[in-house]
Parts: sequence; C-alpha cells; structure tokens
Amino acid sequence: MSLIVQKFGGSSVANAERVFNVARIVTDTYQKGNNVIVVVSAQGDTTDDLIEKAKEINENASTREMDMLLACGEQISISLLAMAIEKIGCPVVSLTGWQAGFVTDSNHGMARIRRINKERIENEFAKKNIVIVAGFQGLNRYDDITTLGRGGSDTSAVALAAAMHADLCQIYTDVDGVYTADPRIVKHAQKLTEISFDEMLELASLGAQVLHNRSVEMAKKYNVNLEVRSSLVKKPGTIVKEVVSVEKMLIRGVARDNDVARISVVGLPDKPGIAFKVFSLLAGKKINVDIILQSIGRHGTKDISFTTSRSHKQAALDTLHEHMQSIGAEDIICEENISKISLVGAGMQSNPGVASKMFEALGEANINIQMISTSEIKISILIDINDSEKALNVIHDAFIHD
Amino acid sequence: MSLIVQKFGGSSVANAERVFNVARIVTDTYQKGNNVIVVVSAQGDTTDDLIEKAKEINENASTREMDMLLACGEQISISLLAMAIEKIGCPVVSLTGWQAGFVTDSNHGMARIRRINKERIENEFAKKNIVIVAGFQGLNRYDDITTLGRGGSDTSAVALAAAMHADLCQIYTDVDGVYTADPRIVKHAQKLTEISFDEMLELASLGAQVLHNRSVEMAKKYNVNLEVRSSLVKKPGTIVKEVVSVEKMLIRGVARDNDVARISVVGLPDKPGIAFKVFSLLAGKKINVDIILQSIGRHGTKDISFTTSRSHKQAALDTLHEHMQSIGAEDIICEENISKISLVGAGMQSNPGVASKMFEALGEANINIQMISTSEIKISILIDINDSEKALNVIHDAFIHD
Repeated sequence: MSLIVQKFGGSSVANAERVFNVARIVTDTYQKGNNVIVVVSAQGDTTDDLIEKAKEINENASTREMDMLLACGEQISISLLAMAIEKIGCPVVSLTGWQAGFVTDSNHGMARIRRINKERIENEFAKKNIVIVAGFQGLNRYDDITTLGRGGSDTSAVALAAAMHADLCQIYTDVDGVYTADPRIVKHAQKLTEISFDEMLELASLGAQVLHNRSVEMAKKYNVNLEVRSSLVKKPGTIVKEVVSVEKMLIRGVARDNDVARISVVGLPDKPGIAFKVFSLLAGKKINVDIILQSIGRHGTKDISFTTSRSHKQAALDTLHEHMQSIGAEDIICEENISKISLVGAGMQSNPGVASKMFEALGEANINIQMISTSEIKISILIDINDSEKALNVIHDAFIHD
Repeated sequence: MSLIVQKFGGSSVANAERVFNVARIVTDTYQKGNNVIVVVSAQGDTTDDLIEKAKEINENASTREMDMLLACGEQISISLLAMAIEKIGCPVVSLTGWQAGFVTDSNHGMARIRRINKERIENEFAKKNIVIVAGFQGLNRYDDITTLGRGGSDTSAVALAAAMHADLCQIYTDVDGVYTADPRIVKHAQKLTEISFDEMLELASLGAQVLHNRSVEMAKKYNVNLEVRSSLVKKPGTIVKEVVSVEKMLIRGVARDNDVARISVVGLPDKPGIAFKVFSLLAGKKINVDIILQSIGRHGTKDISFTTSRSHKQAALDTLHEHMQSIGAEDIICEENISKISLVGAGMQSNPGVASKMFEALGEANINIQMISTSEIKISILIDINDSEKALNVIHDAFIHD
C-alpha cells in the first residue's frame, strides 16, 4: 500500500463531466489499495469571477478580506469532487486548508506554509477515507484564512506529500508531461520520462509552465517524487526527482520566455559601487532582475543592462529616471521586442562544447544574439522576439533530434 | 455605548449597490459609538446556484459535503461587505461561523447551536473593529462545517445577541415591520410598534414570514430585544419583546397559511389507542402534524382529521395507506384547496367574545368554516382557499380597523 498525493488544476474540474473524470482517476488509485490525498484548485474561472466581484466593490480591498473571498473557490471544488466520489461509491471527506492542518505565515495573498498538522488526515486514513484537500489556502496563527498566491495548489500538494511522507506526488495537468521544448512550437519536441529537480527549476522559471517553481523548490528540499501527467490521457508522465538515473541525454530541454524587457543604463561613470547603487534602487522597489550584463561604454564610461519581467518594467524605468542624476547615467533605454531562449541540462556542465554548438546553430540560422548568460546547467540568450520560434527549433534540433 | 447586532438577508446584499447600502447602515450605527456585529446571509441566489451545481453531480450528496459547499455562500457575502466597509473607511473584520465561535451539534443541514465562544469577537471589539459574521453556519466538535437550515441566519443573529448580551438585535428585511395582516392583501393592515414573543411566534408559524420561529423562540428564551425593520426605508420597525407595555389592542394580527393539506382517516373503530396508533405512525416518518380533530363517524366508528404541510402530504398518505388495514380505517381522504386563517393576540385569552365575533364576521361574509382550533392566544380556522383573502379582510376589519 502506497500513499499517493494527486493534484488537479482548475481546468481539470471546470464542469460536472470533468469533475467525474477526476473522481474516476482518484477512485481507481484508491481501489488499487492506496491511501489517496487529492489537492484541488478552484473550478475554471471561479477565482477570476470572485476577483471581479471584489473589484466592483473595492479596488483596494485588504488582502485579508480577499483571502476570505478567494478561499471559497477551492471550498466549492473540494465539496463537488467529494460528491462525485460519493456517487461512485467510495468513502471520502473534503477538507479546507485549515481543516487539513495548513498553518501559514500572515502574508495574506502570498502566504508561506509554516507547517502541516497531520492529525486530521491521519484520522481520515484510519477511517479508510479518500481525503480531498483545498489547495492554495491555509490559516495563520490568528485563525485567519490565508492564500498562498501563484502556484499555490502545486505547493499545497508537494507540502502535503512531504509532510505525510507520500510515495509519489502526481501533478495532473492538460499536458502529458515535460517536453524537451514546447510541442506547439517545436516539431520534434520529445516527452521526457525523467528530469532532475534542478533542470525542472530552470525549465519552470523559463516559461515552460508545467510546474510552478515554488513547488519544485519544495519538492527538491524534501526530496518528494513528483510526476507530471495528463488528466485526460491515461499514460505515464514525466518523473521529477533528485538524481536522474540514466544520464544519456546531455540536454534536457529548450525553453522560451517572452515575458522579458531589457533595460540599459548607459554612460555610467566607471567607478566602484555603481552597480550596487543601481540594483539596490531596484531591490528597494521589489523589482526582480534576471540577467545582468555590464560592458565598457564610450569615453571611459560603462553601460549596465538587465532584464526584468514586463510587469516590473515601468516601475524599474520610473525608479531609474528618478535617480538618473544621482547615479550619473547619460541615458536609459528600454527594449521589449525580445525573447529569452534557454538550453537546460545537467549534463552540460561537464561539456564545454555546448555553448559553441548552440551559437553555431543560431549563426547558421542568421539569428543575432543580444545578450548571453550562463549557469552550470543553463545557457540563456536574448534575441529578437520575431526570431524566437525559429531559434527554439534550430537549437532543439541541434541537441535533441538526431 | 451599546452593543447592537444587525442581521441582513440575502436580498439585502444581492449586488454591489445593495452591499453598499448595508455598509452605510452599519457604519452609521458604528459611528454613533456603538459596538456592531453584522450577521449576513448568502447573496441573492447564491445558495440556489450552489445547490444546482451539487445536484448536477450527485442528487444524494451527503449533508456533510452539502454544508461544506453551502457555507461558501455566506463566506462570499461577509468578505464583500467587509470590503465595502473598508471603502467607506471604517475598521472591519469578517468572520466565518467557526471563526466567530459557533459550535453546533453534528446534525448537518439543520444543526443546532450548542454554544458560542466569545473570545474572537471580544478581541475584535478591543481593536475597535466592526465584526461581520457569516450567518447560517458553525462547526461541530469534529471540526466539520455545519449549516443551521431554514431561518439559520436569523437564528445566528439572535444567538450572538444572547451570547454577547447585546442591547438590541435588529433584523433588516424588505418589509418595514410586523403588520396586523399582510398589507398586500388586507387594505387596512397596520404596522405594530410592539409585539410579544408569543404573539410573534404564532404569527411566524402562521405564514407571516417576517421572522423565523426558531429565532423568535431563542429570543424569548434568552430575552433578546428584537427589532424587525426595513433595510431600504429609514424608519423605526416593530420591537419584539417579552412583555408588551401598553395592552390596548386586544388582537395583534391576522395571518394566513396556504401551505396546508387536510387528511381525514375515516371509519376507524371506536376503541382506545387508535389516535395514538395513527399519530405514532406519522411521527415515525417525521411528519409534522398541526391541527388535529376527532369526530364521531357513522355506525359507531370515529373519524380523525389533521393538517400537515403540503410537502409532507404524500409521505403521510403513503404511510396511512400502507397501514390502512392494521389501523382499521375505511377510507383516507385528502383535501388541498384549503387555507388556514389565524387570529392572534395575547389579549384574547381573557375575552370570551373573540371567537364568536370572528365566526360572526365569517358568517356574514358567507364563508364556510371547515375546522376550528384554538389556543390561549390564537384561533385558527380552515376554510376554502378561494375564500381566504376575503376572510383575512373581514376578520381584520372586525377586530382591528374601527
């Protein structure tokens, strides 16, 4: 007998038919003799509808009351799924975040899980119940309902798997696994049977939106076996785990991220502490910066370029313009028609030829590289957004399709 | 400084505009220096929509999961009302039933309140917060969410008023008080400034659907001052309390109840224990019986007639037909085109002329009486449903309009 955590997103439970589809997956697993915990998100557009209702009343509602409101989304879907499982004839109980023992900090709207009290779920297992848990939510120490923010339900599932020492945590989505590239864009994209946490982290952060980074980080920390698989097609997905057994494949995947803006601060005085000044200003406004590049400018000055998400772009520009004089910049330039392409693979760290092979493929396709950034398991480049699909294909084919 | 509990029904918070209307009533009361607890029902049709969602999945869902689902209705409305009050600029916090300390039994779907833990609300008062509480819901001792069933939000409000020793419990509705008869039917109906708990109980149970009986019973038990008033018009409503001060008016009101079916069990053997047999059968099926009348039948037999609600009619008929032989009945007759008209007033118990005056008025209007039942503060009659509006008017005018 194993303990399996299964997580289903909002589209998987969007209507009665899909709720029954999920109920069948769950009861099949249960009837094979497993203990099953099911984590569910809010149905389809429920969360957006609730946000709409709130905005009609108060655009600046407190995050505490927003959490009270939004937590209803998952409470509705857990009870409906429980009813479907009752109809199939298996013993089941639905639990809100607080009933399932989720204790979080008080950071409403983006709370962090502090711990999970296991008693209730253990009691339900003793009664042979399938346990359905509302994802995305918990309770702070003042007994107020909190929500976990983006990727919250994935994180709830992984946290439960860690706390309960589950044998497997299955994340059901509308794709059937993790691919070497987005199959809608790259013709020869291949499904991976396995991927390491680190590789998945790089892919997740680079726009392969299968799993939220936060949940992968937690899975890595507590060594939770993750499986990404389809809720619609019954076949094995991709296993995400600490060490990938057979290290045949050098490269794990190619990802694209279009949510990028590049900002260049031009003509800075060439003296110590300038970079610190620029980035401490941005950090003070909680602006996340991704790739940073510093180069020599004209007349003994230097230029600093960095990328940020498009949602942070305006705040970054405003902050820099405000302090243009104190940092001594000549100009601030913003470029948005760019795309970040990243090649990810744990194997590449011991293989110096990877970068040159990548650049060669791009050169042959006549694609200009604007910025380059590398880490142990990743090479990222910035290119014109119009070249991005072509770039994905030529890089993918150079490394993966032979 | 007073402590005032204000309760608003689902139609009072049906849309953003009405939510703000409620928010203004609440903040006006708060800004006069009062502690305010607001009890809210689910918005407009939310509860029906949720029930619809459940039925699509499982017509026979467990009451435990139905409660989990339905509790969301109030959780949505409390958070939206809190956001409106935040917008107006007053300090506020919304609490679910369990956060507000409602402990109930485990009778899902129609739970009884066991006690209210006051700590949380007292803490919120110490912070000068307006406290919004989700009506209709609580938590049982297994930490499962329960709902209180029909009239639940009124009951939540009165229970809070009792537990917190509130100075006043205001029930806001779409009528502006308790009338001597339904003003839509009886032209000369008058609004009462005061009414006693017992009179209100009789009126409530007789189809004057202003306050649910359960809440009036609780108010009487804990001597809570109730006021029924309009959420739309700003004027005093009707005070419901233990002793009505000036006992000028003999009669408090005339009410009609069309949700009545009369069942007659005809030709029973005239021997002891027959009535017990009939009504224990009905009690075993949890069928509520209202008026009972036993009369002599033909050939030394007896007939037993009783009334029940239309929703219980079929179950009653089925039960009686099933046991027709064992109870020795010759026939079972059902009549549905009837209406119950009741005259209510604490003054009538010491005035023997009331009944005859009532029957005289009906006789003059040529209305035939089918059954009569009397209590200390009430006289009820059954008549043809087509005569009911005329009957309401002639009785009302005979006693109240002079």
